[in-house]
Amino acid sequence: MLTKDSSAKRYYFDWAASAPYDGCIINQTNNLALFGNPSSMHGEGKSAKLALEDARARCAKVLNVQPETLFFTSGGTESNSIALFSNLFKKGQGRIISSGAEHSSIREGMDTLERMGKPTGRITVDSEGRVTPDLLAKAFAKYGEVRFVSCMAVNNETGAVTDIASLADVIRKNSGAPVHLHCDLVQAAGKIPIDIHGWQIDSASISAHKIGGPRGIGLLYLRRPLEVFYSGGGQESGVRGGTENTQGALALAGCLEKYAVSETVNAEYAKADSRWNKLITSLSAMERCTVIPKQRAQNARGFSPYILQTAFKDIPGEVMARALDDMGFAVSTGSACSSSSPERPVLLAMGIEEKLRIEGIRISQGYSTTDEEIDLLLEAIAEVLKFL
Amino acid sequence: MLTKDSSAKRYYFDWAASAPYDGCIINQTNNLALFGNPSSMHGEGKSAKLALEDARARCAKVLNVQPETLFFTSGGTESNSIALFSNLFKKGQGRIISSGAEHSSIREGMDTLERMGKPTGRITVDSEGRVTPDLLAKAFAKYGEVRFVSCMAVNNETGAVTDIASLADVIRKNSGAPVHLHCDLVQAAGKIPIDIHGWQIDSASISAHKIGGPRGIGLLYLRRPLEVFYSGGGQESGVRGGTENTQGALALAGCLEKYAVSETVNAEYAKADSRWNKLITSLSAMERCTVIPKQRAQNARGFSPYILQTAFKDIPGEVMARALDDMGFAVSTGSACSSSSPERPVLLAMGIEEKLRIEGIRISQGYSTTDEEIDLLLEAIAEVLKFL
Repeated sequence: MLTKDSSAKRYYFDWAASAPYDGCIINQTNNLALFGNPSSMHGEGKSAKLALEDARARCAKVLNVQPETLFFTSGGTESNSIALFSNLFKKGQGRIISSGAEHSSIREGMDTLERMGKPTGRITVDSEGRVTPDLLAKAFAKYGEVRFVSCMAVNNETGAVTDIASLADVIRKNSGAPVHLHCDLVQAAGKIPIDIHGWQIDSASISAHKIGGPRGIGLLYLRRPLEVFYSGGGQESGVRGGTENTQGALALAGCLEKYAVSETVNAEYAKADSRWNKLITSLSAMERCTVIPKQRAQNARGFSPYILQTAFKDIPGEVMARALDDMGFAVSTGSACSSSSPERPVLLAMGIEEKLRIEGIRISQGYSTTDEEIDLLLEAIAEVLKFL
Repeated sequence: MLTKDSSAKRYYFDWAASAPYDGCIINQTNNLALFGNPSSMHGEGKSAKLALEDARARCAKVLNVQPETLFFTSGGTESNSIALFSNLFKKGQGRIISSGAEHSSIREGMDTLERMGKPTGRITVDSEGRVTPDLLAKAFAKYGEVRFVSCMAVNNETGAVTDIASLADVIRKNSGAPVHLHCDLVQAAGKIPIDIHGWQIDSASISAHKIGGPRGIGLLYLRRPLEVFYSGGGQESGVRGGTENTQGALALAGCLEKYAVSETVNAEYAKADSRWNKLITSLSAMERCTVIPKQRAQNARGFSPYILQTAFKDIPGEVMARALDDMGFAVSTGSACSSSSPERPVLLAMGIEEKLRIEGIRISQGYSTTDEEIDLLLEAIAEVLKFL
């Protein structure tokens, strides 16, 4: 985890922004002999196509879905946008609604849909950043006909886990026209147990670089074929245009097999949970520290043990992050994808007061984080608090 | 160029679909220490951001443009779509027109714009697949107000080179509102001399994997900021959302430096031209062979010496491609990105009769193609003609 140009030891606590590369998988799948265009009919094309379909089948096996429901994209943002913009050509007048605490790729997409004249709406989240069945039912009551619901499984700023299956129940009981349930699984895959079938998800997004894979590759799950806004060159069954990224697909398959199978997820979860409990307990004992949301300090159930939002009294998040960075610890002030918007929209949606929003930092861990690193982080924070 | 599972020697003539990887560049830029999210503020993020901006500056130097006019995307298809869909929010009523022989990513995008209620139109191409100043002027006369013109520099099926500067002159003389000129440079970069400034292009697309780079990375040039349809997480100055692909950007920079600087392009062009003249002369001497368009056999000027479309009497292109593949030669039956559409829309737009469209195959070469490989390909074709 050391940066190449730094001789000082580094401690990486920003896995939610991007995981350190799994060099083993990336180097193994960097098979330069597979240079053929998978859409070409000759030997080189066929080899690449076989590899691509092998990657798809392996991803499908881990995710317990059919290979033909998985489509390779350039990442989570693109997967989210393909699902969202499928609404542009859908007939009917139902509303497109999303949790108020979604990732910026969904938030920006909702704004785009609104500008294109599509009726949109926001589902209020609770003080933990979560959509509950009640809150979804209220959104249905408020908006009348709804056609599309987008709700992330694990909040990328607070780690709050939404019970997607319970939302699917609300949708199923809804008497109106069929409702499409889209779920951003970017912070969930390889971190918490996911059950695409059981949760009755219609579409879902996964990104490779959050689980050790390379940039520029992700997955879109589609329970049923969907009319996409733009099919480009018609690759990936017309769902995503552009020459297929064979090496990326193989790397993503490798990462899912290594990190996202149930046994590994459960085993790593237990270890991560133990490290996080220690972190949260120790932070809560610090006078100037507020865990966000506050109730998490008492009951961490319902949160991913990989992400923690916390604030330190009278220290702006940016200042704390910089101070820790100087000491070798990488933490963030929120989603890297929203780093240009200082207003922290996810925390705002949760009703977090302005002072805490400004003071908030995000700490996130991964499979290689150790107890010792947690201790050192706590020491570093205590050290900063002495001087700031 | 050998496929891994094949012991027989392979000869690759489908560079226009995807170039063999430049293993040297790809392995050098596969720097796993640069795993930070470039949008993160900590050390790991800053290192990645520095590398990303270094890659941008190096691409800009090769292309002789300002770094702030270049935006990394997932490839040529996405670059084309970002430029095209910027029209969705543009005020005014001008028409969006494109050459009738564009790549499928533009063609599909035009269909999408049409469905979204935007007025579109096609510029007739000449019998060589090219938009001439006259034909563009006629399109302006036909459609009245035009706001956006899309025209590729090198046709990906025939190699026809369009004189983009001459089209820019027509646009400049047009008395109406400003017209945006978009140019797909995917088959031009690293192949023919390009001059973004001199050609007065407003936006352009480049793809890494056509010049030895990895999949999933490309460039969009924007002369001026442009209101994009969807900004995702706001990365790349809001032009392209999604975590930035640092390694891909470095590899693309490496490929442009190695293959797209003027001296290299000119030197390689001369060699490619000599090989292609030999190929075209020899093919033209074969009784059953028709070079497409026919006039190319007499005068190859105005065509890229990297792409050739040709047909063999009474042999469907698919059959010829399969026969050559069996003998170790990879050629294609047209753009890999349109492999699902058998009607060959580019050849149709050029007015090529149905029989020749069915018989057409595309042969494309690259910097490592040798004279000997051309000889062997000619021998193989002669051999196939004996039996089919």
